[in-house]
Amino acid sequence: MKKFMDKDFLLSSVAAQDLFFGYAEKCPIIDYHNHLSAKEIYERRTYENITQLWLEADHYKWRCMRANGVPEKFVTGDASDWEKFFEFAKIMPKLIGSPVYHWAHLELQRYFGIDVPLCESSAKQIWDQTSAMLQGPGFDAVSLLDKAFAKILCTTDDPADSLEWHLKLAAEEDLTFKVLPSFRPDRFLHIDQPAWRNALKQLGEKYGVICDWESLKSALRKSLDFFLSAGCKVTDHGFIHFRYAEGDAAVVMKKALEGDILTETEIAVYQGELLRFLGKEYSDRNMAMQLHLGPIRNNSPELVKVFGADAGGDSVGAATDPFALSAFLGGLEKESALPKTILYNLNPADSAMLSTMAVNFAADGAKVQYGAAWWHHDHIRGISEQLDQLMETGTLAASVGMLTDSRSFTSFARHEYYRRILCDKIGALVESGQYPYDMEVLGSMVEDICWKNADKYFEFGVQGDN
Amino acid sequence: MKKFMDKDFLLSSVAAQDLFFGYAEKCPIIDYHNHLSAKEIYERRTYENITQLWLEADHYKWRCMRANGVPEKFVTGDASDWEKFFEFAKIMPKLIGSPVYHWAHLELQRYFGIDVPLCESSAKQIWDQTSAMLQGPGFDAVSLLDKAFAKILCTTDDPADSLEWHLKLAAEEDLTFKVLPSFRPDRFLHIDQPAWRNALKQLGEKYGVICDWESLKSALRKSLDFFLSAGCKVTDHGFIHFRYAEGDAAVVMKKALEGDILTETEIAVYQGELLRFLGKEYSDRNMAMQLHLGPIRNNSPELVKVFGADAGGDSVGAATDPFALSAFLGGLEKESALPKTILYNLNPADSAMLSTMAVNFAADGAKVQYGAAWWHHDHIRGISEQLDQLMETGTLAASVGMLTDSRSFTSFARHEYYRRILCDKIGALVESGQYPYDMEVLGSMVEDICWKNADKYFEFGVQGDN
Amino acid sequence: MKKFMDKDFLLSSVAAQDLFFGYAEKCPIIDYHNHLSAKEIYERRTYENITQLWLEADHYKWRCMRANGVPEKFVTGDASDWEKFFEFAKIMPKLIGSPVYHWAHLELQRYFGIDVPLCESSAKQIWDQTSAMLQGPGFDAVSLLDKAFAKILCTTDDPADSLEWHLKLAAEEDLTFKVLPSFRPDRFLHIDQPAWRNALKQLGEKYGVICDWESLKSALRKSLDFFLSAGCKVTDHGFIHFRYAEGDAAVVMKKALEGDILTETEIAVYQGELLRFLGKEYSDRNMAMQLHLGPIRNNSPELVKVFGADAGGDSVGAATDPFALSAFLGGLEKESALPKTILYNLNPADSAMLSTMAVNFAADGAKVQYGAAWWHHDHIRGISEQLDQLMETGTLAASVGMLTDSRSFTSFARHEYYRRILCDKIGALVESGQYPYDMEVLGSMVEDICWKNADKYFEFGVQGDN
Repeated sequence: MKKFMDKDFLLSSVAAQDLFFGYAEKCPIIDYHNHLSAKEIYERRTYENITQLWLEADHYKWRCMRANGVPEKFVTGDASDWEKFFEFAKIMPKLIGSPVYHWAHLELQRYFGIDVPLCESSAKQIWDQTSAMLQGPGFDAVSLLDKAFAKILCTTDDPADSLEWHLKLAAEEDLTFKVLPSFRPDRFLHIDQPAWRNALKQLGEKYGVICDWESLKSALRKSLDFFLSAGCKVTDHGFIHFRYAEGDAAVVMKKALEGDILTETEIAVYQGELLRFLGKEYSDRNMAMQLHLGPIRNNSPELVKVFGADAGGDSVGAATDPFALSAFLGGLEKESALPKTILYNLNPADSAMLSTMAVNFAADGAKVQYGAAWWHHDHIRGISEQLDQLMETGTLAASVGMLTDSRSFTSFARHEYYRRILCDKIGALVESGQYPYDMEVLGSMVEDICWKNADKYFEFGVQGDN
Repeated sequence: MKKFMDKDFLLSSVAAQDLFFGYAEKCPIIDYHNHLSAKEIYERRTYENITQLWLEADHYKWRCMRANGVPEKFVTGDASDWEKFFEFAKIMPKLIGSPVYHWAHLELQRYFGIDVPLCESSAKQIWDQTSAMLQGPGFDAVSLLDKAFAKILCTTDDPADSLEWHLKLAAEEDLTFKVLPSFRPDRFLHIDQPAWRNALKQLGEKYGVICDWESLKSALRKSLDFFLSAGCKVTDHGFIHFRYAEGDAAVVMKKALEGDILTETEIAVYQGELLRFLGKEYSDRNMAMQLHLGPIRNNSPELVKVFGADAGGDSVGAATDPFALSAFLGGLEKESALPKTILYNLNPADSAMLSTMAVNFAADGAKVQYGAAWWHHDHIRGISEQLDQLMETGTLAASVGMLTDSRSFTSFARHEYYRRILCDKIGALVESGQYPYDMEVLGSMVEDICWKNADKYFEFGVQGDN
Repeated sequence: MKKFMDKDFLLSSVAAQDLFFGYAEKCPIIDYHNHLSAKEIYERRTYENITQLWLEADHYKWRCMRANGVPEKFVTGDASDWEKFFEFAKIMPKLIGSPVYHWAHLELQRYFGIDVPLCESSAKQIWDQTSAMLQGPGFDAVSLLDKAFAKILCTTDDPADSLEWHLKLAAEEDLTFKVLPSFRPDRFLHIDQPAWRNALKQLGEKYGVICDWESLKSALRKSLDFFLSAGCKVTDHGFIHFRYAEGDAAVVMKKALEGDILTETEIAVYQGELLRFLGKEYSDRNMAMQLHLGPIRNNSPELVKVFGADAGGDSVGAATDPFALSAFLGGLEKESALPKTILYNLNPADSAMLSTMAVNFAADGAKVQYGAAWWHHDHIRGISEQLDQLMETGTLAASVGMLTDSRSFTSFARHEYYRRILCDKIGALVESGQYPYDMEVLGSMVEDICWKNADKYFEFGVQGDN
């Protein structure tokens, strides 16, 4: 029986251990998609206690608490920080097999040197010890990122954003990592949602009044140029329904602005044409385009009422239409305007489709990537499934690897989790005679997947720096 | 090499064995959903031979026989009981890896003390031995249930049912288990199927003529009150297409009663509004609502012709629409009328969607559950997948566990099968250092999943009795 | 650590090794579906070098090369044969976990006796050695097939084909295998695609002008009779969208011939009625009907431009509609005209649906089969999944086993790959006590799956010959 989460956690063969300790563990972190706050980084945000670090904004943990009967008061309500942590500690032992369970313990080990399992009886001691450490030096946002050996952080930003904090961070000279904005125009794509009008208004205030399709495109172009000047390399898009149709978007937009209800087809034309426009603009600016496909959001009216959106009432949605996706990517390729693209699925039923779809557009190398396991798919089995898909139907060695997609400054432990699973999978292939025992080739492959492929793909230039 | 199906069957680690023998094996059975006949229990039905017990009504076994070329005469036809058993015995060795193979052998071991593999050469001996035992004492329906350590049995009953046998059983004083009716209004939901009119007629005869939407609701309410008085805690619903729309169901129903063909949208309105009505009524009466999603039934016209419905021509159907399901559950939650709900999928492609959907509505604890692997999904890999989903995206520890969904008085071996897989999975996590070796916590968790969670969730009160 | 791809490759238990070496390895090959050229067999095609053998027509390898950044010039372009092979060799180490990696090494071992891993440094030596061997005796198409112990080869042929080379091969007396044509009427089914008109024209030239539905059916009947006379036992059909509706196909066809655009419903009626017609004709002639469901083809306009169709821009598409499939199969069964049918899925999300659907129509034994893992699903995990599905929801022992679906004369190594995975899976069940250790039963089962079931199912008569 292996010791609980010791140094060989998830590394079940010698080859896996050699790959992890000889290569993966030493790699810097390129986190090309997350939801960190540039402001909090700039301001060197600190934390009074672990509740502020862990439970303030983490809907993964909230879901676990609710599913185990913790009243909302102790989840997002007005209970004290200690009470919230204590309630979380009490349900921790119930989270057997959950990534939340492993992530939390990895964070306690790596950031706080605590290797006691968190539960009701250890809660007070862990609270006291982490509070003391958090209130001391080395636990502000920048120090936490340094501790994680982060080199690149790409946040998620609205096209109307001022990027004030990114610009201030870029002006700092002693940071050991870069914080780059990412362009996320979701509010503009979803013409059928209430946030659309406000999005137009806000962007219009910065880049010229938006009253029709042409002025929308003009404003988005200006915003893209501004993002580019601020170092943006990556864009992001989330789809509950991925729709794509070609047609006259100007007519549809006019109709929407006049307050008419749009048909499904009209929504598809607007979304399709806006995506097509954006794809070309990204291609022109050498920005990568991320597509996050398949959640269904804000399902619980109760949570929306007491908390608002993003309260943890989001789940796996429908499978993605491969015909719409193919038409979109193929249409851009036909115009020689297909940008670097990463496809992420939330519904595991899409894995084989997306993994094989990516390779269809490989005429220029691995330009279209099948992205890492995401959100409700981001756990041992989900990560393993993504790696398998890449090996079976794409090329694992060309993958740009892991990202956190997180709001938390300590969630970089997820890169370690991914790397252990990666090394274990490769190790198992070597142990079983499915691949030669050649540590030079394999070590280099692991380094590529952990960070070098991403650095080259997005052109961050970290390798040039070293 | 392990011995064939010995005491450590499916228990591949010491931790797994400790959990099974120390905890799981000793737990009583709460079978909150099955298709047992209350009449046969009351009448202490006996069996002349194992064909009557095994092959009279088990379409799982029928499918296996047909797929191996056994003519229908020996499946559901007029061959003798011995001939049928002999044909089944002959194909048994071909069922390698099938749950039917394991269930049958578990039943031979547990109920008859036979541990010889069933095949052509052992058939006669096993037939003779089981016939002798079945014709002796201890093999009537009640004794078989006692032998299984059953405490609660929830059958499946039509709203028009008299519940005669349930009432008689409730009046018995010496039973060591309870037999509770479950409300299954499928015939009323499927307005597009021929059985609908007859259902209205039959219910109308008991609870007042049904001539429109209001009288339908009134009759269903009366039936629900009667079921409640008979101890009903659970309801059940099967969907080939899960449809949900809001609208004027009274108009749709009028149209249907007049013999007009309904559109897809009208069917969705009727089903959606009837479900919404029922959901609220269940919530008022604290009844749990089961949704069984995704079969496609009676595919073989040949089987329907020679046998009728439920002949074994049923299979995995389409994936479920997450938007319809979310609208239904969210709509009830909005009206503070979401009952306890259990979601079951037949199509494995729905697993992640249902498991995560359940947690969206966890504001009151694990009120919405992702249910155990069902029917064509009820096998080692399917059970393992359901447990994994719960661990990764929900909480295994809060699960209400297993049910048989069976017509057979010996199929309680399926609980044992489930419990072995459960203990093996938890054991593997401990062995590999993914969870602390804490048998007190784990043993208690296993007991919760095996029966205590279900007892609390449905409020059967078994724990209070002990 | 096991040696790289040694004799026990993929055989992780003694039982697995016993089954493979005692039974599976010795079985002949019945390859009932492939894309070999009868002309090349008849002409005893030879190869100057391994590029001609491996890279001339294998879009699996092309995809791997492109995804690793090899320019199209070295994939399908005008680079020299050596250059192409060298580029492939360079990316080989990146293909860890890919079936292409294992197939290539199995072929080097079995056909050339080379057990050095292929990579940049071994490329020249392997090129020289294989070139020398290919230019010597024993490496023409017929010798390669003999070396593989092939007994039956079913190619893929258009209804308008003259079958010239099949007829010539049939007239040869000393061949140790049969090369049979398969009827593949895809161009006729897809009324919405440009190739349809040309297909009608070509078939009309052989079997009477096709100007309407009746003359189409008449010509197809004549073609089927000709195929039957040439030994055809198998038909094949590929579907991006599997559509099925009943209606007046003659009216739809008239509309299409007049150049009108068809609605989705009309396309479904035409496809449905043509399939229904063909199914009955197959049933009359005792031909098996293969349905390949779920690819999405020619996604990359760039590849279509530089190369044409089938360039490797094909991927996993949408899930199949179970209602359409059930209506088709059930409709034929109702008319007592359901032919032997094999269902293959490219989207893994269809596995459970197809495996269970097949068993619905088992009234005459395993007439409808769930077919082997195909194309992007043809790898260790995909094969394993298909075997699991058969065991869990069908009957593995009744399976007609593996086929190559390949254009290459050395790809019979895929049968070995499949057989190793099959033996390993069965071995694991024995090792873990899930099945008795009875090598007589298991060995016979393995032989059935490897070739005897297929021989009986298609009535090839190989067993009669021996």
